[in-house]
Amino acid sequence: MQTLKLGWGLNVQEMDTSCLKLVSALEDGSGSHVHLRVCLALLALLALQGPRACATPGPALWPLPLSVQTSPRLLRLAHESFYIGHDPFSAAGPSCTILQEAFRRYYDYIFGFYKWYHGPAKSPVETELQQLLVSVVLDSDCNAFPNVSSDESYTLLVKEPVALLKANRVWGVLRGLETFSQLIYQDSYGTFTINESIIVDSPRFPHRGILIDTARHYLPVKSILKTLDAMAFNKFNVLHWHIVDDQSFPYQSIAFPKLSNKGSYSLSHVYTPNDVRMVIEYARLRGIRVIPEFDTPGHTRSWGKGQKDLLTPCYNGPKQSGTFGPINPILNTTYSFLSKLFKEISMVFPDYFIHLGGDEVDFQCWESNPDVQNFMKQKGFGKDFTKLEAFYIQELLDIISTINKGSIVWQEVFDDKVELQPGTVVQVWKTEAYRGELSQVTADGFPVLLSAPWYLDYISYGQDWEKYYQVEPLDFDGSPKQKKLVIGGEACLWGEYVDATNLTPRLWPRASAVGERLWSHKEVRDVEDAYKRLAIHRCRMVRRGIAAEPLFTGYCSHDDKM
Amino acid sequence: MQTLKLGWGLNVQEMDTSCLKLVSALEDGSGSHVHLRVCLALLALLALQGPRACATPGPALWPLPLSVQTSPRLLRLAHESFYIGHDPFSAAGPSCTILQEAFRRYYDYIFGFYKWYHGPAKSPVETELQQLLVSVVLDSDCNAFPNVSSDESYTLLVKEPVALLKANRVWGVLRGLETFSQLIYQDSYGTFTINESIIVDSPRFPHRGILIDTARHYLPVKSILKTLDAMAFNKFNVLHWHIVDDQSFPYQSIAFPKLSNKGSYSLSHVYTPNDVRMVIEYARLRGIRVIPEFDTPGHTRSWGKGQKDLLTPCYNGPKQSGTFGPINPILNTTYSFLSKLFKEISMVFPDYFIHLGGDEVDFQCWESNPDVQNFMKQKGFGKDFTKLEAFYIQELLDIISTINKGSIVWQEVFDDKVELQPGTVVQVWKTEAYRGELSQVTADGFPVLLSAPWYLDYISYGQDWEKYYQVEPLDFDGSPKQKKLVIGGEACLWGEYVDATNLTPRLWPRASAVGERLWSHKEVRDVEDAYKRLAIHRCRMVRRGIAAEPLFTGYCSHDDKM
Repeated sequence: MQTLKLGWGLNVQEMDTSCLKLVSALEDGSGSHVHLRVCLALLALLALQGPRACATPGPALWPLPLSVQTSPRLLRLAHESFYIGHDPFSAAGPSCTILQEAFRRYYDYIFGFYKWYHGPAKSPVETELQQLLVSVVLDSDCNAFPNVSSDESYTLLVKEPVALLKANRVWGVLRGLETFSQLIYQDSYGTFTINESIIVDSPRFPHRGILIDTARHYLPVKSILKTLDAMAFNKFNVLHWHIVDDQSFPYQSIAFPKLSNKGSYSLSHVYTPNDVRMVIEYARLRGIRVIPEFDTPGHTRSWGKGQKDLLTPCYNGPKQSGTFGPINPILNTTYSFLSKLFKEISMVFPDYFIHLGGDEVDFQCWESNPDVQNFMKQKGFGKDFTKLEAFYIQELLDIISTINKGSIVWQEVFDDKVELQPGTVVQVWKTEAYRGELSQVTADGFPVLLSAPWYLDYISYGQDWEKYYQVEPLDFDGSPKQKKLVIGGEACLWGEYVDATNLTPRLWPRASAVGERLWSHKEVRDVEDAYKRLAIHRCRMVRRGIAAEPLFTGYCSHDDKM
Repeated sequence: MQTLKLGWGLNVQEMDTSCLKLVSALEDGSGSHVHLRVCLALLALLALQGPRACATPGPALWPLPLSVQTSPRLLRLAHESFYIGHDPFSAAGPSCTILQEAFRRYYDYIFGFYKWYHGPAKSPVETELQQLLVSVVLDSDCNAFPNVSSDESYTLLVKEPVALLKANRVWGVLRGLETFSQLIYQDSYGTFTINESIIVDSPRFPHRGILIDTARHYLPVKSILKTLDAMAFNKFNVLHWHIVDDQSFPYQSIAFPKLSNKGSYSLSHVYTPNDVRMVIEYARLRGIRVIPEFDTPGHTRSWGKGQKDLLTPCYNGPKQSGTFGPINPILNTTYSFLSKLFKEISMVFPDYFIHLGGDEVDFQCWESNPDVQNFMKQKGFGKDFTKLEAFYIQELLDIISTINKGSIVWQEVFDDKVELQPGTVVQVWKTEAYRGELSQVTADGFPVLLSAPWYLDYISYGQDWEKYYQVEPLDFDGSPKQKKLVIGGEACLWGEYVDATNLTPRLWPRASAVGERLWSHKEVRDVEDAYKRLAIHRCRMVRRGIAAEPLFTGYCSHDDKM
């Protein structure tokens, strides 16, 4: 069997090794028998093919799947007859909207944006791939929302005359369709071409997020949907929607319409219930969870405009200064308000998790307020305002568990010793000593999300994607049990300097580096190889309508039309 | 007379002072009698108006004109009847394409992008501004190309019922139309409104440029045209087109078609003669000069692909290494090639100036080449390769003056002691000690362009526009005569990390800071006031289709539709 060195640094000889890896994965409980059986069967199949010398441009997979075996044998796809359909034995059929929509979408991605040209000569590739059959093995999850335990694994067998994409759930199908579309390229004759291949894939981390911030600047729904498209191209599965903050409150609440009526930048800078539903459904169809963040008790200036007595009045000596601080933690009305608001949020957003924020609480205003001082005395908090903060957050966490939701909080909530319920997710964002923080949070048994090295709003000259790429989320002191508590991470694009004018080129392909780090195997970290694949992947994003900026000098074959 | 503090930090009381400034400008020869007479006449007119309290949002002028006097008296504009037309006494009429196109364009900018809404009540502004009459005083320049001496001054008198825009040439009309459009805003009733005003304006520096780089990445013609639009909004008047470089040669030459056939990224990544003509005409209609840069003898790797024996073969010891260095300066064929190429360039690009580059010449390859070594010996250059560089550039400069064109060169050409003809413009780009460089170049009597502090490709987190804004181009040791040699500057957006996906938000509004620095009076440097105006100006650009990124948190009244 010929060794064909491929663009992404794997070759057919590595196949045996990969099947072996699956065997060991089985042993430690993380693998699947189906995968292994498929791997060995296709290994045999590929071994039967003769060698075929052919210098093709080749595809570029991003993020790199767990195991990729590619034969030099090429198949052609005819755009007029190729189709993606359901395997008759699949647990999902034409009534499965998620898949129907995905089939149409990926047909377009594969054929729609390319030039259908015919070169001076006919492509020598004769063998045709007629269809891709999709088979869902277990209960399909067709009408479900994805969650942190959703199975995204899949196997993809590309062989003549029919390719097979197999997954336990629709979520794996979505990931597999993306990979399948990335395998197809036009050869120099203009023929759509794919190598016979076996791909066995599943993500390294279950939570792979992008944070967008619609409070510092409003992002039109269109921009959010485009971001979801790009996320799917990079196998991200969580949109962390930092929806409100000091600057504006664009979320239109049903229970408290004044919050956005008064707190948004303008009455057209709001997300109506229908907007929110549209974002959530668009995300679901791409296997993406939407986790809203309603950050309190700090970062709430805009809340005060539409909700009387919610914020703490600050004092200048004995008098109110006219300015307001964090949410007032000493009033019962605060908690009845929060209870009602979060009950609404829990119904509007289907995800199990709500992000409660809890970062950067400024104690100055609380300190200045005599009523707060009295409350501190009553409660025996002394001068320790972290205790007041903890009091507030604990009340809020109780509200959240009453409504049967899970909480995510920024690291300060953990740092300030709030008593957290098991399963509360702590998001680490402070750059200094973030590895130590990972150790501590996991030592205390809490699931953790890493964001500290992935603040994409901090721009700089040159190829900063490499820096994001080289991060190793499990590189901290801790037991294997602790490492398992790292459920993933998020690339954060805070909005102080970002709106719809620059969102897309600032986010992509820089976030793609984080995408591969969170999806692919730990050993996939060759920057040079990543550069080659990512340069092609970014051109693919551009072709699909995402204005992803260039990594460095060069061109995309279609960017002259932009 | 009431003092009305306006958004841009000038008020009606400052009017007398401004007229006085014009008197002193007359005395030192830089002013015009027309301006002064107008100033005094309108001062009298405005003084007749009574005060009118009215809290309006107000316009935001960018770059700030030389003298702005605004009365609190408001006029309304009716989009269905208001028009811009020629004054019967104007030297230009309906046959003047530049103005006809500009009238239509500015009508659209004024009315086309706003919402035509009617508030719950009728605007109290009753008096109507019926038209803007445009008068060109001297020979119009209607069919001419702008040049470095083009007169861009204008006066704008906004009063009931007809506003008057007066300028010596069409170039001043273009600048005045932009200012007029910036004065108009919709009041809270949705009525298009303008304050009675007198504006007397002319630029501080005659050369105000933007460098784009179409060699590191190809920029589609559409992107270049959009850049020209944005330049006009910021009163820039030079597009420095760094059209070819090491990475690619997209310029399609008539005499040497192989240069782009072989040297471009692909056959669709080229600028045809028609593309170039379109860019030049689009620029001319906006009063913008197009100066092409064909950088030699370094930065020419792509040239070698389509022109045999042009580049110097590098040696590895006694043998050719297979790589190539700068243009080979020792061959006669080099100079006959350059002569023919630049003759073509001089005909394709109407501007008097051609930029010859001359930066970053790497001597290593020349040093390695035995033929070059012999040539050095023959010429008595010793080991000083700057002498060889100077030899080359002098030959090239001779070619340029033979074809009756002027030259612009990067600072190394001056630093390396090339004998320059008087009038050769030196562009200063090295950040270290750029003020000293300005002193030296001007001490030797050469006109100079400043770019060193304005490399916009160097991005960083936060509001770096302030840094660009605070630069003072004349802040160097030198006599008044030396200072007069500073003809302007250029904001440079090199293309290593820039293509059509991120060009616009990376360039605007950061380049706007440079635009005001080069147009407005030296004393206009209040960053806080600039912030307020620029935030509004950037929203205006967004409304006009330029995806200019935000300065900081906030919103534009129309950005929810983006």
